[in-house]
Amino acid sequence: MEQFVFFGGKGGVGKTTVSCAYAHRCARDGLRTLVVSTDPAHSVSDVFDQRFGDEPESVADVDRLDAMEIDPEDEMQRHLTEIREALSEQVSAAMVSEINRQLEMSHGTPGAYESALFDAFVDVMRTESEPYDRVVFDTAPTGSTLRLLGLPEFLGDWIDRLLYKREQSIDLFEKAAIGDMEPRRLLEGDPVIERLNERKEFFEYAGETMRTDAAFFLVLNPDQLSVNETERAIEAFTERDLRVRGLVANKLTPSPDEGEQGRGARYLREKVETERERLAQVREGFDPPLVAEIESRTTEVRGDVLADVAASLDVEP
Amino acid sequence: MEQFVFFGGKGGVGKTTVSCAYAHRCARDGLRTLVVSTDPAHSVSDVFDQRFGDEPESVADVDRLDAMEIDPEDEMQRHLTEIREALSEQVSAAMVSEINRQLEMSHGTPGAYESALFDAFVDVMRTESEPYDRVVFDTAPTGSTLRLLGLPEFLGDWIDRLLYKREQSIDLFEKAAIGDMEPRRLLEGDPVIERLNERKEFFEYAGETMRTDAAFFLVLNPDQLSVNETERAIEAFTERDLRVRGLVANKLTPSPDEGEQGRGARYLREKVETERERLAQVREGFDPPLVAEIESRTTEVRGDVLADVAASLDVEP
Repeated sequence: MEQFVFFGGKGGVGKTTVSCAYAHRCARDGLRTLVVSTDPAHSVSDVFDQRFGDEPESVADVDRLDAMEIDPEDEMQRHLTEIREALSEQVSAAMVSEINRQLEMSHGTPGAYESALFDAFVDVMRTESEPYDRVVFDTAPTGSTLRLLGLPEFLGDWIDRLLYKREQSIDLFEKAAIGDMEPRRLLEGDPVIERLNERKEFFEYAGETMRTDAAFFLVLNPDQLSVNETERAIEAFTERDLRVRGLVANKLTPSPDEGEQGRGARYLREKVETERERLAQVREGFDPPLVAEIESRTTEVRGDVLADVAASLDVEP
Repeated sequence: MEQFVFFGGKGGVGKTTVSCAYAHRCARDGLRTLVVSTDPAHSVSDVFDQRFGDEPESVADVDRLDAMEIDPEDEMQRHLTEIREALSEQVSAAMVSEINRQLEMSHGTPGAYESALFDAFVDVMRTESEPYDRVVFDTAPTGSTLRLLGLPEFLGDWIDRLLYKREQSIDLFEKAAIGDMEPRRLLEGDPVIERLNERKEFFEYAGETMRTDAAFFLVLNPDQLSVNETERAIEAFTERDLRVRGLVANKLTPSPDEGEQGRGARYLREKVETERERLAQVREGFDPPLVAEIESRTTEVRGDVLADVAASLDVEP
């Protein structure tokens, strides 16, 4: 299996449970494993009954397993602060106030959260993964962030154009400032150009790693909406030349006892039957194989049930 | 009740079902009613077993009820085409190609879909609502689009600044073009300034109407994720000085028969009990009242079940 394993899917399908179960199994199988959660509800902390923060920390009682939780809201705020600090050294005070307004606005726009999430997990891949054989994420890039991934050439192209414009404007500035050597110096250690190049490399790294050293699984529930969304998600991956390795069906309705009679039994049988048809449709219609069918539990999945859940996963560690 | 009624909530909670049931009841009660769906899965067409498009159309067999379906993807494409056409008349060919690149990019960014959705439903409010006593939407502004709504002053302010910059640049241009009267004419019928003012008015209208002539309901399911999301959604509304009128709990697990024994009955009883506790938590902890508790059905909700569902809604028509 690749070093990076992603379990994607819509909110509520059970990505965190499946990710923890898989990570737990990898660790038991001897791999140094890190599970990374981006769920703002801190559900990894719930699963292991232990608080985690934004640095990897050992999971008590499970050898070789570390966990960390990233909060995209925090990441967004940190991002904002970083840009502000960098700016205050680079531009005039008047510009800072103008740029601050624009920054506040851009962080309020739809999509800022998703972009921060994407940045956060690529950062983990780059800076935290070195000591681990396996890094498991309870999220995967979605439609719109996949577009970011799929556009490295486009983005590179765009940044190149920005760089060109910026060089042009410095050039003009230099011509205007005859006898003053300041502008040439600005171009050479130019902090804006440096920053743009950093972003370009960031996206190149992300695209390259996702293509060569990552495996993507999608978690779904046996309802029509989830099946439809999974179909769209598979298409989005395919469009970006990424392959979904397998599908995990979670929260299947359990059957009643064989002889059980009554309103409850009738309701469950109808439901189980409908779900079965839907999963047949998934098995036949979708390219990635169905690698797990996990039944719904009325109790929350905690440490001791993890091995159970992991056992239903037909995924190599 | 206000003219505009919104049923918001996450995908899959049953917004379309609840919206159709409520609209159906309004129409039966004598109100000229329009139900507007933004669900790309065309579920309103499924409910009434009739195809609808992006213009209001009578629902067969239900007097006074019209329906329409908006596809935000289509809206996004239309938007793109509109801007392109407008541009080709206003700027040079070289600029058109540059702007086209930027447009393609911005339509690929996260959030473009949500913004298009918001534009689409505000458009319906402005241009289609006149013949109706009640317009029911199977969606409501979400966190990030609520921010757009909550920022009319901010946006107005921002547009004012853009206008000021644009006037300044035209002014400079005019000073440079001594003896040439072209630039002044440009400022007076300036298509860019006109467009910016249009957007400003659009957001002012949206904010004003949502504050004075709209009622918002949130649909939730009795699972923890849905309850947490509903809490966040209520906060987002409150932050924008909008009030959530009521909460609709949908897809409640039905109880088994009283004497029923077996695995199925045990599973359902535990599930019903957990859901009951969660709804108690909603009733006590959340400000908007719980106005409906609707049981899960194994069959899809079609025309004949609508009256049934509507009967569980404690919402005035």
